[in-house]
Amino acid sequence: MAMIVKLSEADPEARPALVAELEALGGQVRILAFPFGTFLAVLDLEQPPLRKVQAMAGVQWARPAGSKPVLAARELNPAGSRVALGAMEIGGERLALVAGPCSVEDREQIFTTARFVAAYGATALRGGAHKPRTSPYAFQGLGQAGVELLAEAGAASSLPVVTEVMEPGDVEAMAPFVDCFQIGARNMANGPLLKAVGRAGKPVLLKRGPAATLAEFVLAAEYILLEGNPQVILCERGIRTFETATRNTLDLNAIPVLKGMTHLPVLVDPSHGTGLRSAVMPMARAAVAAGADGIVVEVHPDPARARSDGDQSLHLPEFRRLAEDLRPVAEAVGRRLDLPATLPFAPNQVPLIRRSAGWGGGR
Amino acid sequence: MAMIVKLSEADPEARPALVAELEALGGQVRILAFPFGTFLAVLDLEQPPLRKVQAMAGVQWARPAGSKPVLAARELNPAGSRVALGAMEIGGERLALVAGPCSVEDREQIFTTARFVAAYGATALRGGAHKPRTSPYAFQGLGQAGVELLAEAGAASSLPVVTEVMEPGDVEAMAPFVDCFQIGARNMANGPLLKAVGRAGKPVLLKRGPAATLAEFVLAAEYILLEGNPQVILCERGIRTFETATRNTLDLNAIPVLKGMTHLPVLVDPSHGTGLRSAVMPMARAAVAAGADGIVVEVHPDPARARSDGDQSLHLPEFRRLAEDLRPVAEAVGRRLDLPATLPFAPNQVPLIRRSAGWGGGR
Amino acid sequence: MAMIVKLSEADPEARPALVAELEALGGQVRILAFPFGTFLAVLDLEQPPLRKVQAMAGVQWARPAGSKPVLAARELNPAGSRVALGAMEIGGERLALVAGPCSVEDREQIFTTARFVAAYGATALRGGAHKPRTSPYAFQGLGQAGVELLAEAGAASSLPVVTEVMEPGDVEAMAPFVDCFQIGARNMANGPLLKAVGRAGKPVLLKRGPAATLAEFVLAAEYILLEGNPQVILCERGIRTFETATRNTLDLNAIPVLKGMTHLPVLVDPSHGTGLRSAVMPMARAAVAAGADGIVVEVHPDPARARSDGDQSLHLPEFRRLAEDLRPVAEAVGRRLDLPATLPFAPNQVPLIRRSAGWGGGR
Amino acid sequence: MAMIVKLSEADPEARPALVAELEALGGQVRILAFPFGTFLAVLDLEQPPLRKVQAMAGVQWARPAGSKPVLAARELNPAGSRVALGAMEIGGERLALVAGPCSVEDREQIFTTARFVAAYGATALRGGAHKPRTSPYAFQGLGQAGVELLAEAGAASSLPVVTEVMEPGDVEAMAPFVDCFQIGARNMANGPLLKAVGRAGKPVLLKRGPAATLAEFVLAAEYILLEGNPQVILCERGIRTFETATRNTLDLNAIPVLKGMTHLPVLVDPSHGTGLRSAVMPMARAAVAAGADGIVVEVHPDPARARSDGDQSLHLPEFRRLAEDLRPVAEAVGRRLDLPATLPFAPNQVPLIRRSAGWGGGR
Repeated sequence: MAMIVKLSEADPEARPALVAELEALGGQVRILAFPFGTFLAVLDLEQPPLRKVQAMAGVQWARPAGSKPVLAARELNPAGSRVALGAMEIGGERLALVAGPCSVEDREQIFTTARFVAAYGATALRGGAHKPRTSPYAFQGLGQAGVELLAEAGAASSLPVVTEVMEPGDVEAMAPFVDCFQIGARNMANGPLLKAVGRAGKPVLLKRGPAATLAEFVLAAEYILLEGNPQVILCERGIRTFETATRNTLDLNAIPVLKGMTHLPVLVDPSHGTGLRSAVMPMARAAVAAGADGIVVEVHPDPARARSDGDQSLHLPEFRRLAEDLRPVAEAVGRRLDLPATLPFAPNQVPLIRRSAGWGGGR
Repeated sequence: MAMIVKLSEADPEARPALVAELEALGGQVRILAFPFGTFLAVLDLEQPPLRKVQAMAGVQWARPAGSKPVLAARELNPAGSRVALGAMEIGGERLALVAGPCSVEDREQIFTTARFVAAYGATALRGGAHKPRTSPYAFQGLGQAGVELLAEAGAASSLPVVTEVMEPGDVEAMAPFVDCFQIGARNMANGPLLKAVGRAGKPVLLKRGPAATLAEFVLAAEYILLEGNPQVILCERGIRTFETATRNTLDLNAIPVLKGMTHLPVLVDPSHGTGLRSAVMPMARAAVAAGADGIVVEVHPDPARARSDGDQSLHLPEFRRLAEDLRPVAEAVGRRLDLPATLPFAPNQVPLIRRSAGWGGGR
Repeated sequence: MAMIVKLSEADPEARPALVAELEALGGQVRILAFPFGTFLAVLDLEQPPLRKVQAMAGVQWARPAGSKPVLAARELNPAGSRVALGAMEIGGERLALVAGPCSVEDREQIFTTARFVAAYGATALRGGAHKPRTSPYAFQGLGQAGVELLAEAGAASSLPVVTEVMEPGDVEAMAPFVDCFQIGARNMANGPLLKAVGRAGKPVLLKRGPAATLAEFVLAAEYILLEGNPQVILCERGIRTFETATRNTLDLNAIPVLKGMTHLPVLVDPSHGTGLRSAVMPMARAAVAAGADGIVVEVHPDPARARSDGDQSLHLPEFRRLAEDLRPVAEAVGRRLDLPATLPFAPNQVPLIRRSAGWGGGR
Repeated sequence: MAMIVKLSEADPEARPALVAELEALGGQVRILAFPFGTFLAVLDLEQPPLRKVQAMAGVQWARPAGSKPVLAARELNPAGSRVALGAMEIGGERLALVAGPCSVEDREQIFTTARFVAAYGATALRGGAHKPRTSPYAFQGLGQAGVELLAEAGAASSLPVVTEVMEPGDVEAMAPFVDCFQIGARNMANGPLLKAVGRAGKPVLLKRGPAATLAEFVLAAEYILLEGNPQVILCERGIRTFETATRNTLDLNAIPVLKGMTHLPVLVDPSHGTGLRSAVMPMARAAVAAGADGIVVEVHPDPARARSDGDQSLHLPEFRRLAEDLRPVAEAVGRRLDLPATLPFAPNQVPLIRRSAGWGGGR
C-alpha cells in the first residue's frame, strides 16, 4: 500500500519537517512537484496512517493509493493538464498533428516526409528506430542511428520528434535526440520501462496496450507520474477484438471515458487503430469530434514500398487532405487546427518516391 | 450454392422465358425488383451453371453466391441506397435522428417523449414493446399493447415509429402499427426472423450482433434482401470486448468499413454502444464525423426511473443539446441536420416527470 | 422485480390459500414443481413483500429475483440435477455421448451414422434439420422432414434424438419427434424461444452463446426453469475471442465455474468449440477430466462431403477411438463410460460413403 | 527478409566455406547448432537467393523466413523437443510440476514452500522476485535479493528454480542463480528481452501474452531460437476475453494447436489462467488430459496473506491433492507423474503459517 499526500501551498517551509516525519513512519518518500500541486508519495507502507498524516501541518489531504490511480485522476486537475511539445501545448485548444513514417528507413525518406508534413500542418514528427516486430525476421529498425537521423530531420523542419523506446538501457543514449519518448502498445505495462522514461523527465507518449482496459491504461500513466514526471500524453491506438476487417478495433469510447478518469491529454492513432488507409481519415475526424486532443498518423512518401505498415500509411498529399478535413470538424467542437496558409511548393512538386522493390511491407 | 443474375433493363419481355429456363435447371427462382436493378436469385443449386446463364438473352451478368454477400455488396449500387422513413430518406444528405425511450412504459411517458423529441428535431420515434432481456425477471415490455401505444404517440407527433420484433409470429400483428421493424442485436443472426421481416416489405433497422463481424452483419442483411426487401438500415451498436468501462465497445470503424462493403445506409446507436449517458454525445458527434447516416438514441423523461436502460438514456433537454451539437459536425462533413427553428414551448416547460420509485433500472 | 418462494413440503394443503394470498398482492403466480422442491414464482411486482411472505404458513423461504438466477442456482439442489435422456441420466456417474452429423442430409447418411454411433457407445443421436447459417445461400437444412428422418433413425438404433429448434412456431410440430430440443448458440438469449421450449416440457440442450458470459448463460437457463421445466442441460461450445487458429475458443473454465453456479448438468461440444477435427479428441478428453457430464460431437460418414461443418466432423472410426480414449480419463476422475463390449461388424465393414462432389462444406 | 539453411550432417567440413559464401551475399549469418540439426540463419536480405543456396555443397535445404516461424515449426523436429530442467526433461513421458508462490516474500515463506512442494512431487520451484504489477503501488517484488533467496530455497530442496526476468539489463546478474528464466505474459512480445534470454543460453519458460494469437506466440519463441537457444518451454496461461467469471480465459485449445505448430514443449498455468483456486484442480486435470507436458501452479503456505495472487494460490495440502489427482489422468493419456512414495512428515505437520494481516492480496 501507499499514500499520496497533497501539500498545502501556503506552507512550504513546513515541508522538510513533514518529509522527515513521514520517513520516520517507515515508508519511502518521494516529492512530486507538479504544475497542479506538490505531492508526497509514501510507498511500501503496511497500513497508511491516514488520519495521523491528515492532521499534520502543511498537509492539505492524504489518500490511500492501491489499485486505483491517484496522481493521474481527473479530480487532481479538473481543468486538464497540458504537455508542451515544441511550439505547442497538447491538451489546449489547438489540436496536435503528430505525423511521420512507421519506421525511419533512410535519410531521403525521413527528410522528405518531415519537410512535407511540416508544410502541411504537422506539429510533431514521428518515426520508429527501435521497432517492436512480431516476427524476428521483420525489419527491426535502424536503432540509435535512426534516432539521430530522425532528430536531424526534425531539426531541419522545425518539428519536435517522437520515437519509441523499447528498453530502459536505451533511454540515456536516446534522450539528447528525442523531444518525446513513445512507449509502444506492446510495452504499455512494462514497469521498468515506464519508470525509466518517468525518470528521464521528458514528455512521454504512452500508447494503450491492445488488451488493456482503460483503468489499466491510466495505471500505466500513474507509474510515470509517480517518478515525478507529469508530462504524459495518452494515445488510443486500437484494441484486440474478434473483428478481423480492421487490424485493431480503434476504441473511440476511450476519449470520453479517459477524459472523465484522468486529467492527461488524449491523442488517437487511427493508422494502427484500423490498419486500413481508407479508414484513417474518417476515424481521425471522428476522434476530433469525440474530443481528442490530436491525431497521430503514419505518412510515407511511398507507402507501397514502406518497410513496415505500408497498408495503413497515408501518401503525402493525403496527409494534407486529412489536415484540411479535420479543420472544420475541430471548429465544430470548439477546437482549432492551425494550418500554414501557403505551401512552399506546388502540388505537382510533391514527390512520389519510387524505390527498388523487394523490401515488401509487413506490419 | 446459389446464383444471382442481373437482368438487362433493355429486355423485360425476355424475363418469363428466362425464369422458366432457370427453373428447368432445378433451382428455386426468385425475382427481386430493386431500385438499383432487377435480379433473379436461383437457390439450391449444386453447381451454378454460370457460363450457360451468362449467355442467355436478357442477362447482364450471373454470379455465384455462397459465403459472401452479393445483393448487399457496394458494387451493386455504388451511389448508396436510401431508405424512406416517414418524410425523409435515410442515406441521403440529411441525417436521421431516431429517438425515444428504451421501453414503452405507459401513455404519458411515450406521448411526452414523442412530443418533445419531435419538437427537438427527431426524424423517427423508437420505443421497445417486445423487450429482449438477459434476466427473465426483468421487465419484458408491454407487448402488442406497447406497439399500439407507440404507433399512437408517433401519429400524434407526426413521427414514423421503429420498434423491435422478436419472433416471426409477431410480424403480422405488428405490421399495421409499425413504420420500421427493428431486429435487435441478440437476433441479428436469427434466420427465421430475418426472413419474416424480409417478407413483410417494410423498412428494417438491423442492429449488429455483439459478437458479429462486419462480414457476418452484411450477410444478415443479405437474408432480408434475398426476400425481395431492399429497405435495410444497418445500425452499429457496440460489440462485446474485454473492456468493462463501457457496456459495449461502440465500434465506429464499422462506418468506413461498412460503407466500403455495402450500399446500405448505416446508423449508430451510442446509447447501447457505450451504456454511459456521459459518452452518448461525444460518440454521436464522432459517428457523424465518421460518416454515419444518422443516430439512434435513447431519451426518457425521467431516466432515473426508467424500467430499462436508465443509465444510458438522455434527459429531454439533453436530446435538444445533442441535436444542436450534431449540426455543426454534420455540416463540417458535408451533411445536413434539419432542426425546427422555434420550439413550441419554453425551456422551463420541459417536464421532469417523477414517478413512484421502485421499478429500478436494469438493462 | 419478482420473488421466488420455496414451499415447505410438510404442508401441501396450505398451498391453494397461499397462492390466492400472493395473487392478491398483485403479482402473477406460477407453481413450479421440481424434483428438488416446489416453488412459487411471483412475477411483475414493484416491491416483493419478502418479510410478509416469509411469515406465511407453508413458506420455507422467500427470495427476491432480479438480475441473478434463483431457480438454477446451485444452492437449490447442491447434489446436482440429473436430466433423463433415453436410458440414461445426464448428470449422473455415467457420461453422455451425444453424437451425429451437423445436418441431417438424407436417409442413408443419418441411418448409417445412427447405426454406427450406437454400436460405438453413443447415448443420444444429434442432427440438425432447422439450420442457423451465417449466409442465406448456405444449406438451410431439411426442416420438418429432417426432424422426422432423425426420429426414424434414432428409433431404428434405439437412441434418443436431439435437434435444434429455431422458432417458437416450430415447437409443436417438432415435439412428437424429438426427445430433447436443442437451443443453438445464436439463440441462447432468444426469450420467446426459451419460453416456448420451457412450456414444451421436454429436456432442453441449451448451448452457450458465443458472446455470453457464464452468468448470462445461467440466466438463459432460468428462463426455461421459470416455465416449470427443470430439464435443462447446459452445453459449452466455444466463445468468440481474438484467436483465429480455432473457429471458437472452447472455454473449459466454464465447467468448474458452472458447477459452482448452478445445479444443472454441463456437456461440452469440442466440434464447434474448436472447428478442427484434430483438436476434437484432446479437448473431449480435457472436458471429461475437468468434470463435464458428457460430450456432444459431430460425426459424419463422409466429412469431406458434409453439407455443413465437414472440417470439424469425426469419421465413424474416429468416433469409436474417441469413446475408447475417453473411458480411462472418465475412470481417472471417478466417472463411467459404458461402451458395448462387442461390435456388430468388423472394422473393415465401416462404410466410407463417397457421394457426388459439389455441395462443398461451409460452416 | 531472411533465409534459414539446414546443413547436411554428412559434410561438416564444407561449413566454413559455406558461411563465407553466404556472408558474401550481403546478409548477416548465424550458426545455430540444435539437437535436431545444424542451421544457418541469414538475416537482412532483400531477396533470399534460395535456388542458388539450395545448390551449394553441404546444404540440405534453404527456406525463406518472413512472417512465419521456421526454427520453431513442428516439422523441424517432428518427434518433439525436450528441455532439461534439473533432473527431468520437459516434453518427455514424465510430466513437469512447477510449483511455488507468486512472489518470493521472505525466507520462511519460500523455504517452507520449497520443502513441501518438493516432498509432494514438484519438479521445479517457481517464485517471482521482479514482479510486473498493474499498479505502481502494488508490491513490486524483492528484486535480486528475492532471486538469490529463491535459489537458496531451491538448492535446499533439490529443485531447479524458475523466475521472471523483466529487463535485459537484469539477465546477467540473475543468470548464476536461475535454472530457467521466465518471460511473463506482459513481456511475451518484448523483443529486446527475448533476444537477451536467447543469448543467455539457459532454458526459458515463455508465457503466452493475454492478447497474443498462437501464431504470434510461436513467433516470440522463434526470437529466442534465432539467438541459438532451443531450450524454450511454452506456457499457456489464459487470454483476455469478455468473460469476467474468471480472471483470464485459460485456452486449453492451445495445447493441440501448438503441438501441431511447433516442436516445443507446452506447459499450462491454471492459476493465472483462471484466477480461482476452485478452478485450478479441474483445469490442471484438463490440461494433462489434453496433452500438456506439465503444469505451473501457484502454491502458498498462507494464501489469505499472500502479497500477490492469494485468490488463486493453492494451500500446501491442496498441492499434494493436485499431484495425486493428476496421476491417474496422466496415466489415462499415456504419461507419467512420479510422486514420492513416502512423505517426510505427517499431514498434521503441514504448516498453516499465519502472518500479520495488512498486506492484503491484489493481483
